Amino acid sequence: MQNKITELFNIKYPIIQGGMVWCSGWELASAVSNAGGLGLIGSGSMHPETLKDHIQKTKKATDKPFGVNVPLLYSEIDSIMEIIMEEKVPIVFTSAGNPKTWTKTLQSKGIIVAHVISNTKFALRCEEAGVNAIVAEGFEAGGHNGREETTTMCLIPQIRAAISTPLIAAGGIGSGQAMAAAIALGADGVQIGSLFAASQESSCHDSFKQLITEAKEGDTKLSLKKLAPTRLLNNEFYQKVLHYEIQGASPEEFKELLGTGRAKKGMFEGDLEQGELEIGQVSALIDTIKPISEIINKLVDDFNKTISNLNSFQL
Amino acid sequence: MQNKITELFNIKYPIIQGGMVWCSGWELASAVSNAGGLGLIGSGSMHPETLKDHIQKTKKATDKPFGVNVPLLYSEIDSIMEIIMEEKVPIVFTSAGNPKTWTKTLQSKGIIVAHVISNTKFALRCEEAGVNAIVAEGFEAGGHNGREETTTMCLIPQIRAAISTPLIAAGGIGSGQAMAAAIALGADGVQIGSLFAASQESSCHDSFKQLITEAKEGDTKLSLKKLAPTRLLNNEFYQKVLHYEIQGASPEEFKELLGTGRAKKGMFEGDLEQGELEIGQVSALIDTIKPISEIINKLVDDFNKTISNLNSFQL
Repeated sequence: MQNKITELFNIKYPIIQGGMVWCSGWELASAVSNAGGLGLIGSGSMHPETLKDHIQKTKKATDKPFGVNVPLLYSEIDSIMEIIMEEKVPIVFTSAGNPKTWTKTLQSKGIIVAHVISNTKFALRCEEAGVNAIVAEGFEAGGHNGREETTTMCLIPQIRAAISTPLIAAGGIGSGQAMAAAIALGADGVQIGSLFAASQESSCHDSFKQLITEAKEGDTKLSLKKLAPTRLLNNEFYQKVLHYEIQGASPEEFKELLGTGRAKKGMFEGDLEQGELEIGQVSALIDTIKPISEIINKLVDDFNKTISNLNSFQL
Repeated sequence: MQNKITELFNIKYPIIQGGMVWCSGWELASAVSNAGGLGLIGSGSMHPETLKDHIQKTKKATDKPFGVNVPLLYSEIDSIMEIIMEEKVPIVFTSAGNPKTWTKTLQSKGIIVAHVISNTKFALRCEEAGVNAIVAEGFEAGGHNGREETTTMCLIPQIRAAISTPLIAAGGIGSGQAMAAAIALGADGVQIGSLFAASQESSCHDSFKQLITEAKEGDTKLSLKKLAPTRLLNNEFYQKVLHYEIQGASPEEFKELLGTGRAKKGMFEGDLEQGELEIGQVSALIDTIKPISEIINKLVDDFNKTISNLNSFQL
């Protein structure tokens, strides 16, 4: 099978591994690319020199295409982009910022650019900026999220109707069934985060992976809306955030509560109570930590079975 | 095509029209049933005598199966149920309460019973209660909603894994594409609200219908979480609710703000600024007011096309 996404990125399956802070280093990215998807190094939690090291290690670990995810609001953005271009990274996914700022510069170096959005307004800006693909991320996704709270089920048809650029669905996708649902809604491919965060090759702390497999429905909530809406996993820190929200705390109070380094503390160092744990709603459906090759094989098998089964539903 | 849902209700298409306050009287219910779906009279906004009248009119308007939706917390519940049994209504959808309270009584009269839930805990209670079908409603749905905020994309696979009872997906479904997505996720049929609320046969005020077609993404929000989480459409009343939420108002303050009769005022009487307007996120995708027969034909056509197109995606 070839479609817009597999052709664009020259990959076997239209499965993108979301770039995630503290989870997606070279091991995860190269494993996903080797298994036929597109692996992304998450630069959001890396200093420039660390990113350089991860890029070089990824190149050694796979001869398949891979990419780097870059949050555009990152303070060291210039150094990050310089390294990406120097190292001739073939694909860049940008997020959290204006797609016009970097798209043309990267494309002039032969880099394929995708940008992550959560509403139609930004999808249209992406098209104006000339990005090669758009990731539309629904309310159920982990980490930072849109203010409209539009779920994947409602978001994908809206974005599909508004743009003709290749479209990747994200948020709530952790199975071949959900992949088929995303394609039915109008996406050309999927971006998967949480399921890969809990994989053997993910670089987050083992105790965080374990906690993801134990998460139940209702255990994540879109929180910190007075700062930047972020989907958090229930723990002591989250309970404090919740208490502040019920009390109507001010943005300054939230900022002080959050402090700095909480995400690293939780996801990388394994402080499950005081750390900030970012994960998607679909964590409630994840119950084992598996190697990437096994995860992707199962995604593809279940996707194909789901499509076959749908045929008997013709009305 | 016959499946668990079409066989259970003896209908042509696995499409249920959600019972909605102020929208779903006899005209809407009979039109949906005549078009091959299952129409439901929404008793939540009716006094017992009004419901009786709507049941009798529905019987005259269609010889197809139809049902009544009953919120179990309704103060006049005993009279409502008595009328339903007297009138030999073939199908009842219950919601907002314990499915054990009425299921067996209704079934002993030959009535088929479905119950609406938004989490696995209540889905399991439904199975224990012996309901004939379960409606699982995601975060994007209009009106009253679950506290877990689980979206349809994440909810349906969870409920599917937990139960074997026929499963109807609700929330965010307003197109044949979304219907196919819901079936891919594991549902046997769909329940559609917002799209039918904006139909010609819906009994809500014309100006409310018009507003639904004008709604854009982000225009609905799950609100009133300190009372009962309810998805509202943006207007002056909603802005007041939002202000109270930012300030951390108490449940008592919310109750006073809400007052009584606000839903009728907004949806039935057409006071678009001071009324409580309940509608789903999918309203952003609805742009015309059409007759039910046209809506259902398009749903079925798009559903079939989507399934056919998916075949070319086999990996």
